[in-house]
Amino acid sequence: MISLFKNSRRTFIKNSSAALIASLAIPEIVSSAFAVAKPKKITIQDGDVILFQGDSITDWGRSRTQTDANVSAGLGTGYPIFAAGEILNKNFEKNLQIFNRGVSGDKVFQLADRWDKDCLDIKPNILSILIGVNDFWAIAKHGYTGTIDTYRNDYVKLIDRTKKALPNVKLIIGEPFAVIGVKEVDLKWYPKFNEYRQVAREVAEKNDITFIPYQTIFDEAVKKAPGSYWTIDGVHPTIAGASLMAHAWLETVKS
Amino acid sequence: MISLFKNSRRTFIKNSSAALIASLAIPEIVSSAFAVAKPKKITIQDGDVILFQGDSITDWGRSRTQTDANVSAGLGTGYPIFAAGEILNKNFEKNLQIFNRGVSGDKVFQLADRWDKDCLDIKPNILSILIGVNDFWAIAKHGYTGTIDTYRNDYVKLIDRTKKALPNVKLIIGEPFAVIGVKEVDLKWYPKFNEYRQVAREVAEKNDITFIPYQTIFDEAVKKAPGSYWTIDGVHPTIAGASLMAHAWLETVKS
Repeated sequence: MISLFKNSRRTFIKNSSAALIASLAIPEIVSSAFAVAKPKKITIQDGDVILFQGDSITDWGRSRTQTDANVSAGLGTGYPIFAAGEILNKNFEKNLQIFNRGVSGDKVFQLADRWDKDCLDIKPNILSILIGVNDFWAIAKHGYTGTIDTYRNDYVKLIDRTKKALPNVKLIIGEPFAVIGVKEVDLKWYPKFNEYRQVAREVAEKNDITFIPYQTIFDEAVKKAPGSYWTIDGVHPTIAGASLMAHAWLETVKS
Repeated sequence: MISLFKNSRRTFIKNSSAALIASLAIPEIVSSAFAVAKPKKITIQDGDVILFQGDSITDWGRSRTQTDANVSAGLGTGYPIFAAGEILNKNFEKNLQIFNRGVSGDKVFQLADRWDKDCLDIKPNILSILIGVNDFWAIAKHGYTGTIDTYRNDYVKLIDRTKKALPNVKLIIGEPFAVIGVKEVDLKWYPKFNEYRQVAREVAEKNDITFIPYQTIFDEAVKKAPGSYWTIDGVHPTIAGASLMAHAWLETVKS
């Protein structure tokens, strides 16, 4: 019984006998993708609120009713939960709160429509945005009439509004990506889709925002296994693809 | 366009410019837990079918309709999906299939009731079982009349039956665990609950089965942060706890 009590005491003793230091290698795919340009790292600080925002790739099965921080159902089964697992198991002393508010189908203007409730009210210290594939895809798919300029203008406005409301927020912008040759993504996507990738990168660069080159991640991944291993339909990642994305995301923060 | 095509070709070229070799340290908590006894490692082989079996800790929000291999909704949001993400992003050349068939509330005899359909028919090469907390907990909670001998006998029978049906299956047994002082788990659990941990360990040892000392993981974890950081109610892990469990699970396999 004594040892049981010892373990339950909240002593926070640093375990100095860290004996076995094993390591889980970052996927070579992710290392390769970052070999050219390392991302500007964001330091995770005590009490930080981390918010994942975006479309279906972020949303990915999250519960609409379990919306509290750090609740697994509320984080879904996409890249946010993989990233959250690592952040939370390592930063146990920091009282972090992690939320997911991705909504399937969203374009930038639809983020803007729900930005007060689903972002500004949450007051994130670290805000990760992945948006853009629907701004392009919905043109052919649903007759959406927005252009690349709509995407750029909407994105610039959203970032300006966010910085005004949350002057100290640290932003992360993810590159929209697609995997050609897998179901929904064919030659007709190019070269137009590349402009959306470029705009996201420009918005990040102009605002000195940490940028995750997800397209490069998937470009490296398809050198290793078919695109269908990494995405279901060219747009939505499989578990393997989502796990890669999370590793890339984790490369943008330090504890 | 040329570079796009290059990336989309399924050339499977080994990327020899692995340039940047970064590494994601295994949580010190997991390393410490394995410092005394390293688990017998199972090699993941080409075409392996990996099955996670157990109770709510394994089940944890998995879909009952999306039951195909490697489908995120079907893996839930507990430790199996964290483990699956790592296995699948790294073993991209192995055509692995990963399933979760945990069912909330299950005791060993309830696994046995559905074992043909939910295990043997799936023909796993690697079978991970985490069962036992309900065999104990349901006595006080629901008036269940099974004893420690019931647990032992049922578990031995289940393993024997599995080995007979699948002579080459590689088994992993997880230790039932509880975190005292968090909601559902109080002094009344002890010392009786420890017998269930011990039985699981004995069943593993007698059959030369890889054993994951989850209790040790959580014992190490509560030295770092309160038990409520790692489990919701003393029994069910938080995201942080589930991520630790996945890291421990991953220490039992090699790619």
